[in-house]
Amino acid sequence: MTAASPITIRRARREDVAFIVGMLADDPLGSARERITDPLPQSYYQAFERVDRDPNLQLVVAADGEGAVVGCLQLCVLPGISSQGASRGLLEDVRVASHCRSRGIGEQLVRWAVAEAHAKGCILVELLTHQTRVDAQRFYERLGFTRSHLGMTIRF
Amino acid sequence: MTAASPITIRRARREDVAFIVGMLADDPLGSARERITDPLPQSYYQAFERVDRDPNLQLVVAADGEGAVVGCLQLCVLPGISSQGASRGLLEDVRVASHCRSRGIGEQLVRWAVAEAHAKGCILVELLTHQTRVDAQRFYERLGFTRSHLGMTIRF
Repeated sequence: MTAASPITIRRARREDVAFIVGMLADDPLGSARERITDPLPQSYYQAFERVDRDPNLQLVVAADGEGAVVGCLQLCVLPGISSQGASRGLLEDVRVASHCRSRGIGEQLVRWAVAEAHAKGCILVELLTHQTRVDAQRFYERLGFTRSHLGMTIRF
Repeated sequence: MTAASPITIRRARREDVAFIVGMLADDPLGSARERITDPLPQSYYQAFERVDRDPNLQLVVAADGEGAVVGCLQLCVLPGISSQGASRGLLEDVRVASHCRSRGIGEQLVRWAVAEAHAKGCILVELLTHQTRVDAQRFYERLGFTRSHLGMTIRF
């Protein structure tokens, strides 16, 4: 049993984008979807600006004791009519740097997001995790998520 | 084989809220979550205002030839860093009035939302459907969605 690493969770900044993209690409599914060039494609920075100015979205990073970015997560608070007009939280792009796994970083990030969604009046938090990510599914179950839904997608 | 009913898909208005809530409540899962009083709880109208002023959200209704609301759907276009900064579409609260099912109304609504998400630059459209909604899952498969993900939730 490894003790949880002390991390700071803070709002992502423009200079974090390359580290975030690095984590997204360092992944069996993500490696085919991202494009790491130097400089990074402008589309990543344009997306960062859209996320950053959207009051419903919070893109956060976990920084370790030296300030290095070792994890990220995007929380979206979605208004909606159902459930008596309650908002829902949606988690996307949850990642921990591959050399920092099994240290409780993902757990601290997700627990932060669940508490934040609750504080913002959400009635639930939902996420889609790829069928092949069985470790992630066990991780979320341990944190109290249930396998309540099927996640369906159509890709263009 | 029944011919598809001619419907109009339009942005939801405040006066549609009671019809939308009626459809949400007329459902095995929704009946326990909604609260139909006269007048409706204010929380529904407050949620409508939040949805209506959010540029990422489109709550639409399907109106039949007489203008009656017979279906609804909420499309959210979510900016994000992953997939080279592409946005994602999320479908929520897809419903067709119980007396109007099997007439192609849901299909027209979902095809509209998929086309709209594509036109807005989304790389995919995703949704969560409850594990018990096997008819809905077959419906989405027929429209091109795949069972790619597990949908996990935590309820407060």
